[in-house]
Amino acid sequence: MAPELPDVDVERLVGAIAGLLGERERTTQRAMASRVLHAYAGLDEMGRARFLGLLANRFGTDDAAVLDAVDAFHAAEPGAERMIAERALRRAVTPRHAEFLHLVTGLPDGVKLLVDLRAELLGIRARDPALGFLDDELAGHLSTLFDVGLLELRRITWDGASAAVLEKLIAYEAVHEIDGFEDLKHRLESDRRCYAFFHPAMPDEPLVFVEIALVRGMATELRPLLDLDSSTIDPEDADAAVFYSITSPQRGLAGVALGNELIKQVVEALRRDLPRLETFVTLSPIPRFRPWLEARVAMRGLSQFEQESVGLELRPDDAVWLERARPGLLSLCARYLTTLDHGRAADPVGNFHLSNGAVVERVNWMANPASYGMAESLGLMVNYRYDLDAIGPNARAYLNGETITASNRVKNLIK
Amino acid sequence: MAPELPDVDVERLVGAIAGLLGERERTTQRAMASRVLHAYAGLDEMGRARFLGLLANRFGTDDAAVLDAVDAFHAAEPGAERMIAERALRRAVTPRHAEFLHLVTGLPDGVKLLVDLRAELLGIRARDPALGFLDDELAGHLSTLFDVGLLELRRITWDGASAAVLEKLIAYEAVHEIDGFEDLKHRLESDRRCYAFFHPAMPDEPLVFVEIALVRGMATELRPLLDLDSSTIDPEDADAAVFYSITSPQRGLAGVALGNELIKQVVEALRRDLPRLETFVTLSPIPRFRPWLEARVAMRGLSQFEQESVGLELRPDDAVWLERARPGLLSLCARYLTTLDHGRAADPVGNFHLSNGAVVERVNWMANPASYGMAESLGLMVNYRYDLDAIGPNARAYLNGETITASNRVKNLIK
Amino acid sequence: MAPELPDVDVERLVGAIAGLLGERERTTQRAMASRVLHAYAGLDEMGRARFLGLLANRFGTDDAAVLDAVDAFHAAEPGAERMIAERALRRAVTPRHAEFLHLVTGLPDGVKLLVDLRAELLGIRARDPALGFLDDELAGHLSTLFDVGLLELRRITWDGASAAVLEKLIAYEAVHEIDGFEDLKHRLESDRRCYAFFHPAMPDEPLVFVEIALVRGMATELRPLLDLDSSTIDPEDADAAVFYSITSPQRGLAGVALGNELIKQVVEALRRDLPRLETFVTLSPIPRFRPWLEARVAMRGLSQFEQESVGLELRPDDAVWLERARPGLLSLCARYLTTLDHGRAADPVGNFHLSNGAVVERVNWMANPASYGMAESLGLMVNYRYDLDAIGPNARAYLNGETITASNRVKNLIK
Amino acid sequence: MAPELPDVDVERLVGAIAGLLGERERTTQRAMASRVLHAYAGLDEMGRARFLGLLANRFGTDDAAVLDAVDAFHAAEPGAERMIAERALRRAVTPRHAEFLHLVTGLPDGVKLLVDLRAELLGIRARDPALGFLDDELAGHLSTLFDVGLLELRRITWDGASAAVLEKLIAYEAVHEIDGFEDLKHRLESDRRCYAFFHPAMPDEPLVFVEIALVRGMATELRPLLDLDSSTIDPEDADAAVFYSITSPQRGLAGVALGNELIKQVVEALRRDLPRLETFVTLSPIPRFRPWLEARVAMRGLSQFEQESVGLELRPDDAVWLERARPGLLSLCARYLTTLDHGRAADPVGNFHLSNGAVVERVNWMANPASYGMAESLGLMVNYRYDLDAIGPNARAYLNGETITASNRVKNLIK
Repeated sequence: MAPELPDVDVERLVGAIAGLLGERERTTQRAMASRVLHAYAGLDEMGRARFLGLLANRFGTDDAAVLDAVDAFHAAEPGAERMIAERALRRAVTPRHAEFLHLVTGLPDGVKLLVDLRAELLGIRARDPALGFLDDELAGHLSTLFDVGLLELRRITWDGASAAVLEKLIAYEAVHEIDGFEDLKHRLESDRRCYAFFHPAMPDEPLVFVEIALVRGMATELRPLLDLDSSTIDPEDADAAVFYSITSPQRGLAGVALGNELIKQVVEALRRDLPRLETFVTLSPIPRFRPWLEARVAMRGLSQFEQESVGLELRPDDAVWLERARPGLLSLCARYLTTLDHGRAADPVGNFHLSNGAVVERVNWMANPASYGMAESLGLMVNYRYDLDAIGPNARAYLNGETITASNRVKNLIK
Repeated sequence: MAPELPDVDVERLVGAIAGLLGERERTTQRAMASRVLHAYAGLDEMGRARFLGLLANRFGTDDAAVLDAVDAFHAAEPGAERMIAERALRRAVTPRHAEFLHLVTGLPDGVKLLVDLRAELLGIRARDPALGFLDDELAGHLSTLFDVGLLELRRITWDGASAAVLEKLIAYEAVHEIDGFEDLKHRLESDRRCYAFFHPAMPDEPLVFVEIALVRGMATELRPLLDLDSSTIDPEDADAAVFYSITSPQRGLAGVALGNELIKQVVEALRRDLPRLETFVTLSPIPRFRPWLEARVAMRGLSQFEQESVGLELRPDDAVWLERARPGLLSLCARYLTTLDHGRAADPVGNFHLSNGAVVERVNWMANPASYGMAESLGLMVNYRYDLDAIGPNARAYLNGETITASNRVKNLIK
Repeated sequence: MAPELPDVDVERLVGAIAGLLGERERTTQRAMASRVLHAYAGLDEMGRARFLGLLANRFGTDDAAVLDAVDAFHAAEPGAERMIAERALRRAVTPRHAEFLHLVTGLPDGVKLLVDLRAELLGIRARDPALGFLDDELAGHLSTLFDVGLLELRRITWDGASAAVLEKLIAYEAVHEIDGFEDLKHRLESDRRCYAFFHPAMPDEPLVFVEIALVRGMATELRPLLDLDSSTIDPEDADAAVFYSITSPQRGLAGVALGNELIKQVVEALRRDLPRLETFVTLSPIPRFRPWLEARVAMRGLSQFEQESVGLELRPDDAVWLERARPGLLSLCARYLTTLDHGRAADPVGNFHLSNGAVVERVNWMANPASYGMAESLGLMVNYRYDLDAIGPNARAYLNGETITASNRVKNLIK
Repeated sequence: MAPELPDVDVERLVGAIAGLLGERERTTQRAMASRVLHAYAGLDEMGRARFLGLLANRFGTDDAAVLDAVDAFHAAEPGAERMIAERALRRAVTPRHAEFLHLVTGLPDGVKLLVDLRAELLGIRARDPALGFLDDELAGHLSTLFDVGLLELRRITWDGASAAVLEKLIAYEAVHEIDGFEDLKHRLESDRRCYAFFHPAMPDEPLVFVEIALVRGMATELRPLLDLDSSTIDPEDADAAVFYSITSPQRGLAGVALGNELIKQVVEALRRDLPRLETFVTLSPIPRFRPWLEARVAMRGLSQFEQESVGLELRPDDAVWLERARPGLLSLCARYLTTLDHGRAADPVGNFHLSNGAVVERVNWMANPASYGMAESLGLMVNYRYDLDAIGPNARAYLNGETITASNRVKNLIK
């Protein structure tokens, strides 16, 4: 079992970091950084948190230097003098751990290491403002390293992708579990597409990936997409692409907007490859609909129409009730999906797609009757539609808190 | 002819940048940035400088916000409160043009564009502290984007490299001009090696490249290395690798230490491929030896031995004088190369290799009798030797301003 | 269910082949061949055999033309005239189906199709001399297409190989079954190697592949090589490479000597990558030892020493008997492996390795105690050793029927 | 200077070949073949011819065996017995040098070597029927090795192709000389295309390549296609692809129909990449028009219309004559291009494209006024058009000697 960081080692580690930051020859410096990270890798969760605390607190900025810079800034005349003072101030508030993060970047697997360090930090950054400062630094560094201009969009196929990449898809798929290589093979058949972003320094690690089914018409339920025995169609015959799963497995990249970019680039790529595709939609879960609905029912917040249909109590195990409640539930769900709450959608999945400029296209009854679908949303799912020409205005209207754009079909559900 | 930036367009451009920084949807924002850069590309040198001035001055930090942050920092209690104030201060001194630079990174060819922007900035950054601040920002951004962990070391061969890459080597070679594809082919023969770093977002652009000859013994003159008719040897028979040219063509990457990394990685690669190689040396010019020497002679700064040999006047066109002056000139050159001047080597090439941890190995008489060689250094050249095991201590001793490490052979030249 | 070839379709198919052989425009001709093969693919086993019979019998040589050529040859004077007649004779005995086979080669997946056609033919070629003639033709064609000069040696790794290739290894492994992707991953760990030959026209089809374990010393039992939980060693520390499985999955390539070439090229590749490797051995089954042994026992063909040890009856389930019989069985096995029988080894695996120039290095007791190992060889396995410098003479001695080369260790077992 | 093959070495070489054909171990055999070919490479032209003569005469078939097989065939009953005799006969007429050619295939660079051997053989095969037999054998072997199913179609670009490949295009271009890398770069600009076939065992050797200009309308003169200063158009705006040069540099592959396949595959590839392309034409020289014309004039074989226009004498240097003769020359050229002569086109370039199924589309006046164009065809050039849907019938009609398909425009020229 990996040990916590013992007290006696704390000072040794601080000394090692201080030593490597003082060293001026890069190769030596990198060897020293490597040893520090090796020590880090041997620690347990408590030890790692303590290490990060040390890094954040002992290798931040120099208090005296910051104060001096602040004073000089105060004293400077507006204009050139103040600008010079501002440059100096900026340098003074650059923490020393920034240099450590730079060093790690150049180590073998260093970029992956930074991503994992960030994942660790996410859980503890609220504990201590110094950890918050370290997280700012690392998040900024990662957002430059993972700029979309450096990423590679790859189509994942059974013939082309390595087993090392595929086993990661299997392990990472968050929305609809993949049950081993056979199941994955099904999701890579000729009428399926899978795309991922990769980073040049992490060639086997999918950063974000999307699974797509090519269909005729629009997919309104999940089962045929996941079913191993469903028949395949000729991709040239498809007129719609259904994005039924999108996964961002690298927790350490939280805040780096990769999913957004991926969807747009994939829509472009599909349009080029298969010019007959006309519709690009998701088939998305509605993870918080049921709690919202339950609260509504409890608070008597239903319209008369909804109330007549749904009644005073949810009875999802009762087929008769379900059938009767259907129009009411559809109306409620449409309301849930299209109502701004403090300027944003209540649903996190909805918030993601609406921020990207998608439209609430269609609400689907019994689209996911599996137990997790019933628990989240009484089996309802939603299609968000991406129309590349309208993405800009849609996103702007949403992000400015003005409106959630929805199709007439969805609007008409609300009664 | 491309126009300067007309007054009437200044406000339009400022408006465009303000507009795109206010936009929240990424695709739209990027399209706007693309238009701004298209306008920039149409400007002449004066116009480009004015554009950069605008960017630096109009999209820096928010004065009031910085002052507030500074005040809050002053007012904060030491400890957590001050740390929180420091985070806020750091955000306040992050200029708005940083966001613009991030945006450009994700455009097609955006990374190359940033490098070219920096090259432009280098010539004017001293004019205005705001330009200096913009340069700080861009330099920091590029040093993250071009971290060695993201670079790819490629061996350049006639069979493997594209013409697009090779024509750039021809255009960029700075030390010993390459006269077209035929000449380059000679430099890629079986007893030669050429390596370069590439960046994933600039796949055809060598960032820094090195040309190497594999020889028996040590190369002590330049001609056989550049001569098209010289015979080739079996690489397996070579015991030394001579780095006779290293070029960093991307001016915009000034300050990003690529040459250093390249040499070390190439030495590693050669040792793996050709285990019989024992010696890794450069054959380097001594670009400022002649002016230094002339100043010495003028100031009567020669030792008695040197003075007897060289006399009171340099007469490089006189073969008799040259022969007589040889021991004196070798002594002077050895002194020039091994003397610290304000803690560093007087010679810029020397400073580079010594910072990397190399040793002054050997001074070579009439190694480059071409006119440019005579003008720079009276035909003398120097071998710097890289011994991977000693690089760390050597570099440290030099960088700390303690000593320049030299071979006994060189030390013995000084009389 | 695929149909047999109905009588009514026979003439239609003959007509189609005749038509395409008469066509002179290549694109049209290929489209016609494609239709014929599509019809073939829809047939069941009987139908396929009938198709091949038709091809062999109806599209062989032209009897009259052969007779004419034979007569002309008879009539020709020795010298130039006869040589001309011989050229004509050679053309006359080239069957028309040769042209059909050429045509198929250029179709998409045509090369794979020919391999499968050959696999079909192997089972029926003895039925009819015309099928034998077709098989000669196809075998000759394939041996040119699969010349080792056209093959690509690839190392198979978890990170580099596609799932499409890996699933074929799993399906094809003939010697020691692979139980899914997890098991295969174990066989591709850092102290394992797997190499295969591929053909440019069948990029996802391993033609022959070998699995190797890197060990210290020599592997003398199978279990640690196949065990998922066995520890891995650093490949740099290994001094021996154990070829524990070699599989030739393409039945249609029977007679094309690929395994031989693969082993030699792999030994070369390993020597280059891991210069510390000294020993290259197989760990091979002895598939026909037990039947041979039973016959010997029945015929009383044991030496006195053997007889005393083994007794008059094999009792492999009896641990006491096994222990007593051990020296006798080892002696018998060594005899079995090193005795020429009508100029060749009795054992087919032995025949393969001895033809390649390997040496019988070591007989291993209880190396494969699994039930199939007991059934084949009472658990015994053998190491054949490849010493590249001695391969030529060893193979020659064996192929000339002179001797089977064995180590002293093996020879000393025989009593 | 390389020596001829001295008499004293003849028997040594015959002995070496006999030795290697007798050897049974492949690695040894290949080493011996390598030595023989090394000796061959050192010979001059006479020596090489002598070597090939030896190979052809001393390692053909076994006379006695052929006679026996012939006799057995004669004696065999029709049916199975004769089929068995025919198989044996076929084996008997397979020369021993076939085995040597197979062996060479597997050597490093062996495939290229065979191609070069064939080029050598082409010049001398008529001297001796035995050389003709060797040529049959080698040609058959090469036509299998270079089956289109094994070839790779590559687009050649400045960014993608290696200098090693590009310098071969420069050296090989036969139709319109390429003047170094700069000139080639022009031919690879964005509105150009260049495609070649490659063989997996000769990865840097273009087997046949075609140069294409993308234009609006149809190219009717050569100069703008070759001119370095001509402007480029956006490929998306082009509606026609002009194949202005096709080169088959590997003389040893004479008789292997690669050009035909290349054109068809390239038309397919262009249609896929640039769906707006509607017209696929060549701009071809008419190499034998002028001699044919001169003979016609001399023999008074002109129509009245032609005679009135052209007169009794060709005066191509006289601009007035040229202008007057224009309608007559166009008529004559149209006749020349569309008249079958003993069942085929008189022009070799025409014969190639018509065999492929192209149509004589348009005759162009002063399309190539360069001196070589005037000498060949008085400056006239022709467009052959490829319409993939009509290729089959066109080719059949031509190959059956029925007709040359031409556009109405061309037919209307004939008066």
